[in-house]
Amino acid sequence: MTAPLKNTSVSPVVHDLIAALGSKVSTEPELLDSRAHDRSYHSWEQPLAVVQATSTHDVSQALRICHQHHTPVVPRGSGTGLEGGSNTTAGSICLDVSAMNRILNVAADDLYANVEAGVMKSELNDALKEHHLQFAAGPGVDASVGGMAATSASGTTAVHYGTLKENVLALTVVLADGSIIRTGSTTKKSSSGYDLTHLFVGSEGTLGVITEVTLTLHPIPEAARMGVWSLPSLQQAVDLVVKALRSSLRVTRVELLDRVTVDALARYTGYSAPVSETLMVEFVGGPSEVESQYARFAELAEQYDAAEHASTTDPGEAGRLWQARHDALPAALALIPGSAPLTTDVCVPISKLPECILATKEDLNSTGLVAPIVGHVGDGNFHLAILLPPGDAEAESKAHQLNARLLDRALAVGGTCTGEHGVGIGKVGAMAKEHESALETMRSIKASLDPRGILNAGKVLALGGS
Amino acid sequence: MTAPLKNTSVSPVVHDLIAALGSKVSTEPELLDSRAHDRSYHSWEQPLAVVQATSTHDVSQALRICHQHHTPVVPRGSGTGLEGGSNTTAGSICLDVSAMNRILNVAADDLYANVEAGVMKSELNDALKEHHLQFAAGPGVDASVGGMAATSASGTTAVHYGTLKENVLALTVVLADGSIIRTGSTTKKSSSGYDLTHLFVGSEGTLGVITEVTLTLHPIPEAARMGVWSLPSLQQAVDLVVKALRSSLRVTRVELLDRVTVDALARYTGYSAPVSETLMVEFVGGPSEVESQYARFAELAEQYDAAEHASTTDPGEAGRLWQARHDALPAALALIPGSAPLTTDVCVPISKLPECILATKEDLNSTGLVAPIVGHVGDGNFHLAILLPPGDAEAESKAHQLNARLLDRALAVGGTCTGEHGVGIGKVGAMAKEHESALETMRSIKASLDPRGILNAGKVLALGGS
Repeated sequence: MTAPLKNTSVSPVVHDLIAALGSKVSTEPELLDSRAHDRSYHSWEQPLAVVQATSTHDVSQALRICHQHHTPVVPRGSGTGLEGGSNTTAGSICLDVSAMNRILNVAADDLYANVEAGVMKSELNDALKEHHLQFAAGPGVDASVGGMAATSASGTTAVHYGTLKENVLALTVVLADGSIIRTGSTTKKSSSGYDLTHLFVGSEGTLGVITEVTLTLHPIPEAARMGVWSLPSLQQAVDLVVKALRSSLRVTRVELLDRVTVDALARYTGYSAPVSETLMVEFVGGPSEVESQYARFAELAEQYDAAEHASTTDPGEAGRLWQARHDALPAALALIPGSAPLTTDVCVPISKLPECILATKEDLNSTGLVAPIVGHVGDGNFHLAILLPPGDAEAESKAHQLNARLLDRALAVGGTCTGEHGVGIGKVGAMAKEHESALETMRSIKASLDPRGILNAGKVLALGGS
Repeated sequence: MTAPLKNTSVSPVVHDLIAALGSKVSTEPELLDSRAHDRSYHSWEQPLAVVQATSTHDVSQALRICHQHHTPVVPRGSGTGLEGGSNTTAGSICLDVSAMNRILNVAADDLYANVEAGVMKSELNDALKEHHLQFAAGPGVDASVGGMAATSASGTTAVHYGTLKENVLALTVVLADGSIIRTGSTTKKSSSGYDLTHLFVGSEGTLGVITEVTLTLHPIPEAARMGVWSLPSLQQAVDLVVKALRSSLRVTRVELLDRVTVDALARYTGYSAPVSETLMVEFVGGPSEVESQYARFAELAEQYDAAEHASTTDPGEAGRLWQARHDALPAALALIPGSAPLTTDVCVPISKLPECILATKEDLNSTGLVAPIVGHVGDGNFHLAILLPPGDAEAESKAHQLNARLLDRALAVGGTCTGEHGVGIGKVGAMAKEHESALETMRSIKASLDPRGILNAGKVLALGGS
C-alpha cells in the first residue's frame, strides 16, 4: 500500500479518481478534446478528466467518487451520437466505456449474447458468424452496444427486427452513487417486477451507466432478395409500403430515397437509377419464400405505378445497391463542398408520412436551403440532411428554424421528435413539448435515481422548468 | 347543485367517493365479494367499496379522493389474473375499470388501435376483423387489455408476436394523486424521453392505473398450417424447437403438452393422440410459404424422431386441434374430481428447459402430487397445474413447497419466477430473490410515484424489507 501522490494541479475530484483508478484517468488535453463530443454540430466544453474504464467495478468507483464530489459525469461509448448526448460540459468527468469491449457470453441456443457496453456492433456480428447468428437491430453506422441501448437506437432493419428496445433483454447498470444493479432476465419473456431494463434503454446515461448488455440474437437468413423501385410520387411510395405492411408480407427493410438524394448519388458515385422517389426493399428467409414474398411485393408495386430498377439475390450485388443508401449522407454533403449536415429525425404514424414530408419540402423550398431526404419509411421515420455551407450563419439559423417547424409539424400529427437519434442536447425542448403531461413523472424518476443530478446533466430533461 | 347526502354508515373516504361519483360507487356486499378476487387461490378480504369507473376522469377523481384519505386502491380489469394481483384487502377501495370498454380509434393503416382499459381482447378482435387486422398478443383466456398490459401478459403467440411489452405503444395512466399522464407515442418507434410506457406495463397497478392502451395490430394471416407431433422424449422435443428457432423458420406457435396432459385429455375429451410428449406447432403467412415452412419443420422433426399425429390448413379442424391445448386445464382438474389448481409459471432460457422440467417431474413424483405440464416451449415458459384435492391441507402445503423448489430451480439457471402471470401476491418473495440487486431501485421508483403507498399495496413489491 502506498499513499496516493498529492497532485496539486488537479481538482479534488480528479485527485480522488487518480487515487482510485490510476492511469485510467487522464487529463491530457488532446484526449480531453477527442472525448468531449459526438458527431453532431452541438457545442461542447472540455471536461476535467477522462476516465477510461475497463470494468463495471471501474465505473462504480468513478461514479462513487463523482457522487461524493457532486461532479457531473458524462458517459460515453463510441461517440457516434447525433444529438450531443455525450458532449461534455466544463467541470464534468467523461466516463468512457469504449475499452469495455469483451463479449462475455454467446448463448447460441438461447438466442442471446451478454457483452460489455463498449463492444461495437461489427465486432459482435463478427463473433456471431460461427454460430450463424446476428445482432440485427441498430443503426447502419457502427456503434457501441451500450451507446445504442442508451439511445434506443435503430436503423434500416427496425421495420422487421425492431429497435434496441425490442432487442435488449437485460442490463448491468451502475447507478449515480456507484451501486451496481442487474435488470431484466436472460429468458425470452418475464412478468417479474418493474421493467427497469426499458427504463434505462433510451435514458441516454441520465439515470445510470450501462456497463453490460444482454442482446437478443437472430439467425442469419439463408437467402435475401433486394430490389430498387422508382415511384412517380411520394404518396404512391408510402401507399405501396402501407399496403405491403398490411398484407402478410414480411418486409425486412424498406428505405425511401427522395429524388434529391438520388440525384446527389448520381453526381457523387455515378449511381444510375432514374431520378425519382425511390424505394429500396428487402425480403429474407428461405430461398423459395424470398422469391414468393418478392413476387407478391412486385404485384403490389405495379398497382402503384412502381418500376423496378434493379433486383438481386446476390449478396455482393445487394451490398453494392445498399451502398447507395449508406452513401446518401456523403453524397448530400458533396452537393455543397465543405458543408456540414444538420440531421433531423422526426417519426410520424406512417399514414401521415406523405403530408408531413410534402409540407416539409414546401417549407424547405421557401428557405432556399438544400436538404436531401431519406426515410425508414416502414417506421414513419425520415431524415433531412440540411446542408450548412461553411461559415454561413444565416443558413444555420434558417436550418434551426426549419427543424423547429418540422418538429411542430410532426408533433401535430401524433409524431415524435426523435425516431432513433435520441434527445441529447438538441431535442430537450421538443421532448418536453411532446411529453408535456408526463414530464413531471420523468423528473420524479430522475430525482429518485440521481438525487444529486450528476448523470449527464442537461441532457434529455431540462430540470426545473421546461 | 345539491349538497351530497350525508351517509353516516359509510367511512369518510366512501362518503367522499359517493359525493363525487354517485351511483358508480357501490357498497353492496354481493358486488364487493364478486370484485374482491381474481381466479387464483390467493386470499382476499372485502373492500370498503367498489368504484365502477366509466372514464379516465372517474378514475382520476377516485384516486384523488383515496390519495387525500391515504386509502389503499386495488385496480381491477376483467379479474382473470392468477396471482391475486387484483385481490382486495380490508379497508381498500376496488377501482373497477371493466366498464371502460370503448374502442376509441382503429388506425388501420398505422397498425394501431387506442382502446379503453376494460375492452376485452375478444371484443377488440371482433371489431378489427373488418380491417383484416388482429391484436395478436396476450393469453388464450379472454381478458381486458388494461389487465393484460398491467400484467405484461402473453400466451401461445408470444414466440412470434411478442408479449404485451412488445405490443403496447402508448398508455393513458392515472397516477396515485389523480393526475393524468400520456406515455409513449403512436409512432412505431421513438427515442424521445424515458420509456414510461414499459415502466407501467407489468407494474400491476402499483405505479398508476392504466385507463387507455394503444396497441400494435397485425394483419390476419392469409393461411395457416398447424400440426400435432409426438416425440419420444422431452429433450428431443426441446431440441427440435431450438433447431427450428435457430433456422429461418418463423414458428407462430409451438406448445408442449406432456404425456400426463395428453393422457388427461384422452380421458376427458376422448382426444386420441398417442400418449407421449407432444408438440403443437403452427406456421402462418401466404399459402405457399406456410407449406414450405411446415415442410421444412417436418424435415427437422424427423431428425428428432418426431411422428406427425395430425396436420391441417382448415381453420375449423385447426380450431378443434388447438382446443385440446385450451382443454388442458379442465382435463387436468378432472383427474381428481373437485380439485383446484395451483398453477406455476416459471420461464427459463430454452436450453435449460429439459433439465428444469425433468428435475421438476422427479421432484413432483417424490411428493405424490399430480401435476400435468404444458409449456410455451419456444419461450422457455411452462406451467404445472398442481392439483389440490378438496380440503386436503397437506397436499396444499406440499404444492406450495414444490412450487418454492421449482422457483429456486428456475432462478438457479437464470430463469424468472413468472413468465406471464405476474407477481401479484403469490410471487412477491420470489421476485425479490430474482431481482435482489435491483429491488431498491424498484422501491425508489414506487416511492417517487406513489409516496403514500396507496396503489395496490402489498402486490409486486414488499415494501420495507424483502
